[in-house]
Amino acid sequence: MIKEAIFHKSDIPYAYPVNKDQLKIVLRTAVFDVDRVYILFKDRYDWLGKFKIKPMTLVHTNELFDYYETTLELNKRFLYFFYLVSETGEKLYYTEAGFFKKRPEDSFWGFFHYPYIREKDIFSPPDWANECIVYQIFPDRFNNGDRTNDPENVKPWGEKPTADSFFGGDLQGIIDKIDYLKELGINAIYLTPIFLSPSTHKYDTTDYYTIDPHFGDTEKAKELVRKCHDNGIKVIFDAVFNHCGYDFFAFQDVVKNGPKSKYWDWFNVYEWPIKTHPKPTYETFGENVWRMPKLMTKNPEVQKYLLEVAEYWIKEVDIDGWRLDVANEIDHHFWRKFREVVKNAKKDAIIVGEVWHDASPWLRGDQFDSVMNYPFRNAVVDFFAKRKISAVKFNTLITEQLMRHMDSVNRVMFNLIGSHDTERFLTLANGMVARMKLALVFQFTFVGVPYIYYGDEAGMVGGFDPDCRRCMIWEEEKQNKGLFEFYKKLIRIRKEHEELKYGNFTTLYAVGRVFAFRREYKGNSIVVIINNSSKEEVIFLEEAGGKEDILKMGEL
Amino acid sequence: MIKEAIFHKSDIPYAYPVNKDQLKIVLRTAVFDVDRVYILFKDRYDWLGKFKIKPMTLVHTNELFDYYETTLELNKRFLYFFYLVSETGEKLYYTEAGFFKKRPEDSFWGFFHYPYIREKDIFSPPDWANECIVYQIFPDRFNNGDRTNDPENVKPWGEKPTADSFFGGDLQGIIDKIDYLKELGINAIYLTPIFLSPSTHKYDTTDYYTIDPHFGDTEKAKELVRKCHDNGIKVIFDAVFNHCGYDFFAFQDVVKNGPKSKYWDWFNVYEWPIKTHPKPTYETFGENVWRMPKLMTKNPEVQKYLLEVAEYWIKEVDIDGWRLDVANEIDHHFWRKFREVVKNAKKDAIIVGEVWHDASPWLRGDQFDSVMNYPFRNAVVDFFAKRKISAVKFNTLITEQLMRHMDSVNRVMFNLIGSHDTERFLTLANGMVARMKLALVFQFTFVGVPYIYYGDEAGMVGGFDPDCRRCMIWEEEKQNKGLFEFYKKLIRIRKEHEELKYGNFTTLYAVGRVFAFRREYKGNSIVVIINNSSKEEVIFLEEAGGKEDILKMGEL
Repeated sequence: MIKEAIFHKSDIPYAYPVNKDQLKIVLRTAVFDVDRVYILFKDRYDWLGKFKIKPMTLVHTNELFDYYETTLELNKRFLYFFYLVSETGEKLYYTEAGFFKKRPEDSFWGFFHYPYIREKDIFSPPDWANECIVYQIFPDRFNNGDRTNDPENVKPWGEKPTADSFFGGDLQGIIDKIDYLKELGINAIYLTPIFLSPSTHKYDTTDYYTIDPHFGDTEKAKELVRKCHDNGIKVIFDAVFNHCGYDFFAFQDVVKNGPKSKYWDWFNVYEWPIKTHPKPTYETFGENVWRMPKLMTKNPEVQKYLLEVAEYWIKEVDIDGWRLDVANEIDHHFWRKFREVVKNAKKDAIIVGEVWHDASPWLRGDQFDSVMNYPFRNAVVDFFAKRKISAVKFNTLITEQLMRHMDSVNRVMFNLIGSHDTERFLTLANGMVARMKLALVFQFTFVGVPYIYYGDEAGMVGGFDPDCRRCMIWEEEKQNKGLFEFYKKLIRIRKEHEELKYGNFTTLYAVGRVFAFRREYKGNSIVVIINNSSKEEVIFLEEAGGKEDILKMGEL
Repeated sequence: MIKEAIFHKSDIPYAYPVNKDQLKIVLRTAVFDVDRVYILFKDRYDWLGKFKIKPMTLVHTNELFDYYETTLELNKRFLYFFYLVSETGEKLYYTEAGFFKKRPEDSFWGFFHYPYIREKDIFSPPDWANECIVYQIFPDRFNNGDRTNDPENVKPWGEKPTADSFFGGDLQGIIDKIDYLKELGINAIYLTPIFLSPSTHKYDTTDYYTIDPHFGDTEKAKELVRKCHDNGIKVIFDAVFNHCGYDFFAFQDVVKNGPKSKYWDWFNVYEWPIKTHPKPTYETFGENVWRMPKLMTKNPEVQKYLLEVAEYWIKEVDIDGWRLDVANEIDHHFWRKFREVVKNAKKDAIIVGEVWHDASPWLRGDQFDSVMNYPFRNAVVDFFAKRKISAVKFNTLITEQLMRHMDSVNRVMFNLIGSHDTERFLTLANGMVARMKLALVFQFTFVGVPYIYYGDEAGMVGGFDPDCRRCMIWEEEKQNKGLFEFYKKLIRIRKEHEELKYGNFTTLYAVGRVFAFRREYKGNSIVVIINNSSKEEVIFLEEAGGKEDILKMGEL
């Protein structure tokens, strides 16, 4: 056996409670290397008791690894080790102290311990998140519902956007399209920032307590949230806490009063006085983005200010959660406090971080509920849009992603195929709608929350920012109606089938460009077979026989 | 190359900041599998910049794995991947998205990201902990300094202890022995619990605000701490927060008032009324230990109560930290709040958990500074006391332990060879002082805080509790003076050599029963060569040539 591949750790995501009575255990081995895997376990205070033995189940196989799982139930406290047998009969015991050919002596030390299922440490995202289909709106570009609040320099709807163009979209515009969103079937919207800011994207906040007047006001925000709630739609705002805008009161105070400002240590000023050019003399977001001074969240006053903002909008307009901008550049310490404040303000509010890479350090239960799942997008783009990876490689990518997190986290990951920060999927697929449809089938049947970037359902295209932020197409003749209906159908299927929301994921087939998997929940299962090529493929798949077709796409 | 063995994750302990400008990076490969390892890195916002390349250093080799390390310095934000070359010229690139034979295209996704060195997330234990030599005292058994406060049923000093016997040791007794402790050279003491309790061990607290009168009172505790501080000795108390004693006011209120008690939910009562026999009708510590009702730290009132206790003793008597009893059965959530309270009360207070197994979930910087390092003890007992493992296996155990944690954590781990909960080391070594001396050489020259269980320095023996809690031997003729002098010498050597406190650890030789390693710091190094057998061994070790002997033990 390849010992170097065998891995377990009594910590997330290899050991964690799924509820107050059950402990999930995961073991990794090299692919096809082990025939049977058992766990031996007992109560860690049952000094003289015998270990119980339980076989573990192979749940994922990819290019490098096999993953085995089981769930233990026993008085909350576990002492355990593993017993592995290869096809040739080779035997191996695996403990926290390493590998043994012979069964190690019963002793307290050296085995794995899960000391106690501590209720407070059980991770549970909001229930509704499991049922969620989210729709991202970039407010300036979604719909102009109130022409009286348009910026002076507003551009005609549909003109090609530049980085600075305003198109007059607003909160009333979203309210006016609730019926459209309901028809589509989504049940949550996430709005990029809507607080006062000079820019069109509003990621440079001037005032965290004021809705930008080009979008509306606090009363309009309340109306939006209320009407969304009346229609079963949750509302998520964007928390831009890594940095503020140049015009933010505290930064302006520092600009005016220099080191004498009482806000001087809300920022990291390299050199007085503050200058913006040729290079800013203060720390900013990104690479010298002078309009976005970085906020020092290590400063307790800054923490207090931002945490009050987070609480205010939940209490004032009843939003259902926050998406966290540049979440990975703010300390874990702040996010833990943030979680406490947000969950105290609204028990089932959701917290979704923006993290483009492996987000597991933030998804251990103490910080975020979910993240914008860019690694998912990357795999989907490479497999479906660009067709540059095989089904085998695709399977490796998505199973490795699944194994980074607790199941409860995976079920609420915001699985996007595009956003205001990426090229649109259809553009990456060279306009081939068939490729996008296959990707959507996967997105809506995979583990996690399907996430729609406004306009994707209308067949919108667009390259990198600002091109991916074009005005929503409302002229019906310009919309791709077929795609809209396809989205509707997928959303309906997703809603009707618990397997797709709560089920296990098992890869059944990954050869060439054909990928098949099963979602299974409480004895029901759905099998999805995807031929990601233009050639007919004949495959034999026992699991797929004699069942009802929920969706038969044929040749796209 | 064995891809299954290659591992990195952009998180503790594989990636973490050592200070605000430097990022430590670790990569694991299969042993002897790779010839050269490089890291390619750049600022993650330097979109068009070229990746810099830096070779990584092999720092540990054990039975299964090689570990490579490097430290990066660059504008706080890192995008990186690895390049590995085998002796036969095989090349491999390793990214967050897996392995590639050819260098992957420059892109934002798929590479490893360390998004930003967030100052608030940098772990730094108290500076003094790095310099610490700690001495554990079990107060009833250390020294009786005040016969007026002895329990009624006090036993003659030195009689064989039972689970319930009292011997009259007290705080005055510790004060009276400060000169002894100073002569030995230790600079911190950890006292097992001293709060009011009916037992001799006092792990069943009756009142968290009262020093047990058999030990003294608050004024006496203040005197102890003040006099210790005057002599350069830090004082650590024992926080028994997992459970209270049966006589604790809140539990007694529940016993009396049942479900109407306002403390009913401070505990987990299975069945009313509360009964202790035949089995307790409430959750307890361990297996039905009725004298120790488990406290529900998920309850905010319980949290508040215990956090106030933690703060009180720091502020009231100026203690320097807490050792946390049964720390692994209390939720992470509580310990994070505890850290905040303790560090706010005293910036350089230390927090040391009791965790007998892999403690890495508690040592990510947000909870404990250190733990009682039982895995260290287990390896040392097996190698030195029992001689049942080889130097190769010993090296595997200790290097795997080192690689579980950040360097900053390893340097302050409380490396014990015995405690009030284990058999004494000398007993495990069948009384062979020579074996113990070799173990001590290792303990005092390894990475982490040397930890002495009272009386070990006098040559005390004892089996499992209560035998390991015998009265301290004060009659000089019964003390092992040679061992005491040996401890003194090791403590002096430890104090004089920064390498032993702050240096890198590198295994130089591990064959049969001979184990040699180097500690290196700022260009100075100490080489330790241990022959853990009774046979003379001749080894050739270039690193050991032509240097000064700090300690030459010869035949023991």
